[in-house]
Amino acid sequence: SPVLADSNTSQDEVLTQEINNLYQKFTVLEKRASTSWVNNLIIGAFIQADARYFGDDGTGTDTFLIRRARIDVRGKINDNFSFRVLPEFGDDKNGELLDAYVDWKTGDSASLRIGKFKSPLGLERVQSGSRLLFLERGLTDNLVPNRDAGIAWNYKNKVQQVTIGIANNAGDRIDSGVDNDDTKVAYARIYSQPESLGGLGIGIAGSVGRSELNSALPTYKTSSRATVFRYNNDVLRDGTEARIAPHFTYYKGQFGAFGEYVSSSLTLTNSQNQQAVISNNAWQLVGSWMLSGEKNSWGTVTPKSKNGAWEVVARLAELDIDEDVFIAHADSTHSISNINSVTLGLNWHVNNKVKVLVNYEISDFDDGNAVGQDRLDEKLLSARLQLNF
Amino acid sequence: SPVLADSNTSQDEVLTQEINNLYQKFTVLEKRASTSWVNNLIIGAFIQADARYFGDDGTGTDTFLIRRARIDVRGKINDNFSFRVLPEFGDDKNGELLDAYVDWKTGDSASLRIGKFKSPLGLERVQSGSRLLFLERGLTDNLVPNRDAGIAWNYKNKVQQVTIGIANNAGDRIDSGVDNDDTKVAYARIYSQPESLGGLGIGIAGSVGRSELNSALPTYKTSSRATVFRYNNDVLRDGTEARIAPHFTYYKGQFGAFGEYVSSSLTLTNSQNQQAVISNNAWQLVGSWMLSGEKNSWGTVTPKSKNGAWEVVARLAELDIDEDVFIAHADSTHSISNINSVTLGLNWHVNNKVKVLVNYEISDFDDGNAVGQDRLDEKLLSARLQLNF
Amino acid sequence: SPVLADSNTSQDEVLTQEINNLYQKFTVLEKRASTSWVNNLIIGAFIQADARYFGDDGTGTDTFLIRRARIDVRGKINDNFSFRVLPEFGDDKNGELLDAYVDWKTGDSASLRIGKFKSPLGLERVQSGSRLLFLERGLTDNLVPNRDAGIAWNYKNKVQQVTIGIANNAGDRIDSGVDNDDTKVAYARIYSQPESLGGLGIGIAGSVGRSELNSALPTYKTSSRATVFRYNNDVLRDGTEARIAPHFTYYKGQFGAFGEYVSSSLTLTNSQNQQAVISNNAWQLVGSWMLSGEKNSWGTVTPKSKNGAWEVVARLAELDIDEDVFIAHADSTHSISNINSVTLGLNWHVNNKVKVLVNYEISDFDDGNAVGQDRLDEKLLSARLQLNF
Repeated sequence: SPVLADSNTSQDEVLTQEINNLYQKFTVLEKRASTSWVNNLIIGAFIQADARYFGDDGTGTDTFLIRRARIDVRGKINDNFSFRVLPEFGDDKNGELLDAYVDWKTGDSASLRIGKFKSPLGLERVQSGSRLLFLERGLTDNLVPNRDAGIAWNYKNKVQQVTIGIANNAGDRIDSGVDNDDTKVAYARIYSQPESLGGLGIGIAGSVGRSELNSALPTYKTSSRATVFRYNNDVLRDGTEARIAPHFTYYKGQFGAFGEYVSSSLTLTNSQNQQAVISNNAWQLVGSWMLSGEKNSWGTVTPKSKNGAWEVVARLAELDIDEDVFIAHADSTHSISNINSVTLGLNWHVNNKVKVLVNYEISDFDDGNAVGQDRLDEKLLSARLQLNF
Repeated sequence: SPVLADSNTSQDEVLTQEINNLYQKFTVLEKRASTSWVNNLIIGAFIQADARYFGDDGTGTDTFLIRRARIDVRGKINDNFSFRVLPEFGDDKNGELLDAYVDWKTGDSASLRIGKFKSPLGLERVQSGSRLLFLERGLTDNLVPNRDAGIAWNYKNKVQQVTIGIANNAGDRIDSGVDNDDTKVAYARIYSQPESLGGLGIGIAGSVGRSELNSALPTYKTSSRATVFRYNNDVLRDGTEARIAPHFTYYKGQFGAFGEYVSSSLTLTNSQNQQAVISNNAWQLVGSWMLSGEKNSWGTVTPKSKNGAWEVVARLAELDIDEDVFIAHADSTHSISNINSVTLGLNWHVNNKVKVLVNYEISDFDDGNAVGQDRLDEKLLSARLQLNF
Repeated sequence: SPVLADSNTSQDEVLTQEINNLYQKFTVLEKRASTSWVNNLIIGAFIQADARYFGDDGTGTDTFLIRRARIDVRGKINDNFSFRVLPEFGDDKNGELLDAYVDWKTGDSASLRIGKFKSPLGLERVQSGSRLLFLERGLTDNLVPNRDAGIAWNYKNKVQQVTIGIANNAGDRIDSGVDNDDTKVAYARIYSQPESLGGLGIGIAGSVGRSELNSALPTYKTSSRATVFRYNNDVLRDGTEARIAPHFTYYKGQFGAFGEYVSSSLTLTNSQNQQAVISNNAWQLVGSWMLSGEKNSWGTVTPKSKNGAWEVVARLAELDIDEDVFIAHADSTHSISNINSVTLGLNWHVNNKVKVLVNYEISDFDDGNAVGQDRLDEKLLSARLQLNF
């Protein structure tokens, strides 16, 4: 492609030909780039490499572990359809399907989500695993479903979010794609962040469902992820279930806070047909401060400085189990009746994709040991290197 | 890169330099695009979000579920070698390997396929999961292997397809990558669609194999995917096995049809050394009509209109179990001896990648209940949103 | 974009405009290419389709199998951070997480690796699965951990490699991401390949760790991957553990060789509190010759000819179990006390991404059968088609 005029053509004609030639070549490359799936497919990877150290021997096993290792495949068919397939390879899950859904845009601000995904019942639950302020979600996470299969309608504008949906009724802390009974759950959430409130957002979520002799029963855990409460082996969920979950978020300058309360009620039965309607409650209050001056927000932190951003975080949380459950459906010598936890943390956002977290959490239990004795306090020092591509 | 002539150079010389410069920049970008793995790797995603409703209580659990959620990695090394790795994350499979094979081109129309893949014994079985006319394959799918590991030679031209192969002998409806015994299966298929037949294609497939005290036994299912037939626990496959499977396809304008018959024979033994050579048979006849005027075909439908394409589908199918099996190798009070099913469906091809399917299927059983009684008819209403990227 | 001068503009002005236009279009495309995740993400696929044939009936099951089927996601955040997520779908692993780590560059030649990855204790163990000279690693692979979660510091320059790390202490032949006890393992390796040694590289690796009543016990296997040694069911690892592993590599022209020796000691206890400190040893010596004249190396072979490269390989190996283990912690009528194996192989590197391997291996055992009798010799003929994208 040298541009040289020979005796028969004027230099201008040669230049014109060359430019036309370049246009053609360019069009070919541009078209290849445009039609390529690359433009509409995003492949992400997400790694959390953790270390856990328990202050007291016997309350847990000190270990390195891969808490999350995910390959995230998201894409767009056209302006109306997008999707996500997200398997989890970490945490001994080895390919367990987390999300698999299609988003079908039904209006400017509205869409249907169909498949398996997070229900909007827990505020922190729907926060992305990469943005979490602590290594583990707070105690309220015990009383909301992890993920559930169904269909939800989402509406979202600048100040408001509304979700209404129906799903299998997976159950508290359960991540499941199939149902064990015919009955379902309906849920809704409304959240509003009007300018007049100056950084404050308030919302409320709730669900109503039923179970029929369903053996999928929750277990409750602390940040150590040890099971501190389990229902007896012969217990089934059988009857009406409901949740109510008010929450707030607040962001102002370097300061951020959020809080949520969840009440989850279950109808239980056992092998001797003893019925109980119980109601477990949990709450958490979380605050964070960007030491290095960045604006705090619910989303990703982008450091101002080359040295990254520093953030201190603190959390108070409680889980309270209905005492009626210990009559016939759980055993207080193995299962706790109350947890109070305090968590302090320091986060280093190395850049907007790499984060180092250090947490110290003390959990104080009622019951869960020999009669009249409490389960030993849990003191957990944990650290994480997180990379989110 | 502004193009401005200064006093020392003529405008033509400047233009010439600029054009040469553009050529060079272009070559760099073009090369990067060409050498990129992107050109030779295709990553697909496939989601089927289903809902199932059983007309009669007790015949099945109404549920939302993720029927398929796949990440599909295909690529090309060069003109001679291509490959596929396809794990399944849906349907509680959580990373189960479906396909993993290498295609090695050995001629213009011929290639070897090596690894784990579908055997060509069922016509509908080898149809891509994204093109299926119904939510579930028909009853013939019970009598052919799902996938098997081995090696196959494929020949394909405009009118003919030939496959010859050898594999582990996975067994009817079994998807397995390893063998339980030393013996193998050989299979072949020939299919022809000559112009003289005017849209009609006919084919026949068959297999001959052996098993030696192999505990991998099939179970048979309807579209509800409930197991309606299982061999007794002490039964083993031990001896000669064979299948014969003629089939046809027919496409003319908006109309499409296909049909297949499968006879699968097994040699069984049990813990008391009772032997039986049994032969189970199944057939299905399927028709479809593109309401919105598109040309019907075995492959993907591309809608003519912005509103998508509409298709009605219908299927008749039967599975007949050899009565000799009930003497000592299966129990007719738990396993059915015959299924007759009728399926009607309406498919909306929203675009060429998104499809909505609604099916209604009635299955009528012989036996499978208390002595002399038939398993309850199964009435299944099911719906699917499918996205195939 | 035709270039035509009209009456009002000179041809030169038109050309100038067109060239500026091309520059602008080019910049847009270039920017899209540069900012695309594509430049920093590499997705690989790896397939090994194997066939195994046992000369003597009864020593193993003849089978086709998918030995490895991996989707490999690697990426780079910036110059300092890169990562890998590697699940295994083959070998019935169905999504088991192999690697999940972050590399954090801490200097020109140094980096931290954090997550789950291979410990540097076995020379052949850290060789990529795609470069292996044989279908299976040698007997030394029984005495080193497969993968372990923790943190390691790596230093590497032209002639030297140093690794120092701490990990969960997974145990010999174990691939695990979580720990069963509080104690850990520390390991180190140094390897040097100075020019003065003319192609010879020598290294030594070692580890020191402890276990506390840990039930994760190794099993030992040959290339058939049949378990030929297992500890008794009541045995636990409880006490100090250590490994020492010297090794060498040698490459000169078409010839290549490597060898390694591993001694692994364990402290065992059982249900009757019988303690034993045992030391198992293994070694292997491997040679290869590029028949087609390519330069031999530790890395990937790129064939000179269009017909690919041909390589013959041979291996001698031994595994020797401490006889003290048979007093109370293993049973010599089921577990062998010694293996001697000879392996011969022929490799066809079809191109630098496709390889065909054929191996013949004879393993001779001591014990492992009725009292005073040896387990039958294992004669294994195996073949593989490997594709590595």
